[in-house]
Amino acid sequence: MENKKEKTTIVLFSGDYDKAMAAFIIANGAAAYDHEVTIFATFWGLNAFRKEQPILVKKGWLEKMFGWMMPRGAEKLSLSKMNFMGMGPKMIKHVMKKHNALTLPQLMEMAQEQGVKLVACTMTMDLLGLQKEELIDGLEYAGVAAYLGDATDAKVNLFI
Amino acid sequence: MENKKEKTTIVLFSGDYDKAMAAFIIANGAAAYDHEVTIFATFWGLNAFRKEQPILVKKGWLEKMFGWMMPRGAEKLSLSKMNFMGMGPKMIKHVMKKHNALTLPQLMEMAQEQGVKLVACTMTMDLLGLQKEELIDGLEYAGVAAYLGDATDAKVNLFI
Amino acid sequence: MENKKEKTTIVLFSGDYDKAMAAFIIANGAAAYDHEVTIFATFWGLNAFRKEQPILVKKGWLEKMFGWMMPRGAEKLSLSKMNFMGMGPKMIKHVMKKHNALTLPQLMEMAQEQGVKLVACTMTMDLLGLQKEELIDGLEYAGVAAYLGDATDAKVNLFI
Repeated sequence: MENKKEKTTIVLFSGDYDKAMAAFIIANGAAAYDHEVTIFATFWGLNAFRKEQPILVKKGWLEKMFGWMMPRGAEKLSLSKMNFMGMGPKMIKHVMKKHNALTLPQLMEMAQEQGVKLVACTMTMDLLGLQKEELIDGLEYAGVAAYLGDATDAKVNLFI
Repeated sequence: MENKKEKTTIVLFSGDYDKAMAAFIIANGAAAYDHEVTIFATFWGLNAFRKEQPILVKKGWLEKMFGWMMPRGAEKLSLSKMNFMGMGPKMIKHVMKKHNALTLPQLMEMAQEQGVKLVACTMTMDLLGLQKEELIDGLEYAGVAAYLGDATDAKVNLFI
Repeated sequence: MENKKEKTTIVLFSGDYDKAMAAFIIANGAAAYDHEVTIFATFWGLNAFRKEQPILVKKGWLEKMFGWMMPRGAEKLSLSKMNFMGMGPKMIKHVMKKHNALTLPQLMEMAQEQGVKLVACTMTMDLLGLQKEELIDGLEYAGVAAYLGDATDAKVNLFI
């Protein structure tokens, strides 16, 4: 009898610090439970995967504008509630430090160490003008068909 | 042995252009995979199903106010992020055109052609004062019990 | 042959009145269908479980600030759309009354009567400085591992 692993998939649509935290906490928990976990980042969720430093790549002016306006990486995301022009994230990070909670970049690193599959949605990358060089290492690149392939086999499927 | 189709359900709660796009892209992908797909539109998600032109129906003043304030149809929805008073949707639609990506109304049309079941939540229609005449053709009308009937059989269930 | 109950789990991340309503309407529907239902409230979703009156508990100043700024209980939550500085919730509650729809506190009470398991996420309680005394009665307290245990067995898993 084959010993098939349970699967969990999360569509990370949101580019909010708190929602991305929830996504990675659930993903890491599921990986610790020995699930095969996929996080499929699409739309604003891709911003969590951006490198902090600007990368020189050729793009049109509209794509450049998106690049300027969107947060560069996990550390720059805002909160879905009580953002207060950036005060909220500072407060949250302060209490997280006090409670020794893992930051979003640390949660993402742990996910990669635990073998959580991080997928960047190629269709949205095209739309927002994000190129592979601008995203962190260790990602896979795929579209909605690959996501559905994973989700159809999974027990837990969330859209965050 | 019966050859039962996989099922996918999506609760479309959000009335944002980008989130509705994600919902219909996943729905169309699942339909292409031969899933039986249901989109159950509730609360602000119903706005995607409104006809563009105002329809004369009798309603109370509060329901009329909701009708005036809520966006009339898929083309009028705003973005969940970077809306910038309507600039964001224009920018997104511009890049979508450039990349030959399907617009939300086109994605919705494709969903109907592929047999995705589009359901309007009757309870929310009552609350927001939306009547059948004001919504696009080809919808089914049901409540949470019907949604749960579909979801319990489905492999992929998302709340968007 | 054992007669195992279907399971449904909902992560209530959002602290919006309308989204919490959707969560509890689905939860009550599933409970009526004889599902075992869990609502796992985390981050802003915990605000729906706060008592209305301030409770005297010892906490740091940052935790006190969160306590002041976050809405105290289900009745105080705002809308995810068309909040209009508090006008929106009043309008929604007005039409709900007119249509004899259950309010959020009533939906929550019904959920408890139907045996829906309401869980407060202990990790977020720590972060936001919320203590058991400040939350309504009848809750369970657990972390992501307990949520995943329920979700892995469930047919319907939603993140709201």
